[in-house]
Amino acid sequence: MNNYPSTLLEQAVNEMSSLPGIGKKTALRLVLHLLKREPSEVLNFSQSFTRLRNEIKYCTECCNIADQLVCNICADKNRDRSVICIVEDIRDVLAIENTQQFHGLYHVLGGIISPMDGIGPSDLNIDQLIVRVSTGEVKEVIMALSATMEGDTTNFYLFRKLSDFPIKISTLSRGVAVGDELAYADEITLGRSILNRTLFEKNFQK
Amino acid sequence: MNNYPSTLLEQAVNEMSSLPGIGKKTALRLVLHLLKREPSEVLNFSQSFTRLRNEIKYCTECCNIADQLVCNICADKNRDRSVICIVEDIRDVLAIENTQQFHGLYHVLGGIISPMDGIGPSDLNIDQLIVRVSTGEVKEVIMALSATMEGDTTNFYLFRKLSDFPIKISTLSRGVAVGDELAYADEITLGRSILNRTLFEKNFQK
Repeated sequence: MNNYPSTLLEQAVNEMSSLPGIGKKTALRLVLHLLKREPSEVLNFSQSFTRLRNEIKYCTECCNIADQLVCNICADKNRDRSVICIVEDIRDVLAIENTQQFHGLYHVLGGIISPMDGIGPSDLNIDQLIVRVSTGEVKEVIMALSATMEGDTTNFYLFRKLSDFPIKISTLSRGVAVGDELAYADEITLGRSILNRTLFEKNFQK
Repeated sequence: MNNYPSTLLEQAVNEMSSLPGIGKKTALRLVLHLLKREPSEVLNFSQSFTRLRNEIKYCTECCNIADQLVCNICADKNRDRSVICIVEDIRDVLAIENTQQFHGLYHVLGGIISPMDGIGPSDLNIDQLIVRVSTGEVKEVIMALSATMEGDTTNFYLFRKLSDFPIKISTLSRGVAVGDELAYADEITLGRSILNRTLFEKNFQK
């Protein structure tokens, strides 16, 4: 139905709408916004993506995105090198860093096992994780993956891979979120939060 | 709070979030999506915007976006050249074209008069409109601007500019939208739809 008056416009709209969650109408709005900017601004806009894609490096230790060979977190001498938190991608690293409750290192898997999307264990940074754990420096591994079917599958796979090493393997606690009313919590979450109840003092020690 | 692990990533996120309606979190999601694509795909993505910005032309007749000097609609010999529909931007052209109810030509103002945003009559393609109307070929001008304060201001300004020419000046009908329940229509719209009521047959002739 949409007969764009220009093929250049059509191409730009198609490229923009190839991003997840951006439909044709939103894409057109964004592209028309770009058209109103200065050519030099649009050049900076475009180049930032090609530069990122071509020049980005991944930390040789934790597989996180980095500017150098080793990322800021892995290079930080003040962090506890005996604890590794396993996460799906860099957004989870940012989310956990924002809590300021974790002072160990990370390991970025680059995804989770999802047969539906054709992602198997070989597509993830699991070999590097085994190498890190086998050095003996690591005492605990925290599984911080999404509370979904795919996350649980990945948890289970990693647990089997890591169970031979003399390390503690823990996972994020599941339960009622802070601020939630019990009446609106779903059954499974509420059920788990009763089974995994914590001693009263524990919550206040933090 | 967000300490991105890479300045390249930070720049890309900042550029993406400079688009209207895209926040930092969405921008990060979109940029990480681009990172997973092939470098050649990202290059095509980026180049589509710079090419659009640098190579885009505007139709010399209706000021619409075009690949050639004259846009497809103005070049179409089958369209009624005696009626001009005045719209704010190219999205309105697409919306009206999709109705398949209009067979005349357009004139794209490139905005509406909005003192709050510093947009005055001289920033719009009004002079070109006067030139088109003064050729004598035009018999009717339809004002198809947004039903907002700025739209009404622009309507009034154009009406004064065009009132000296021997042409019919009309505007889009305002009223209850098709599919709306009366109980939920706002007072002003409902009031106007009573004042501007149409004869019963008219609705069925279409």
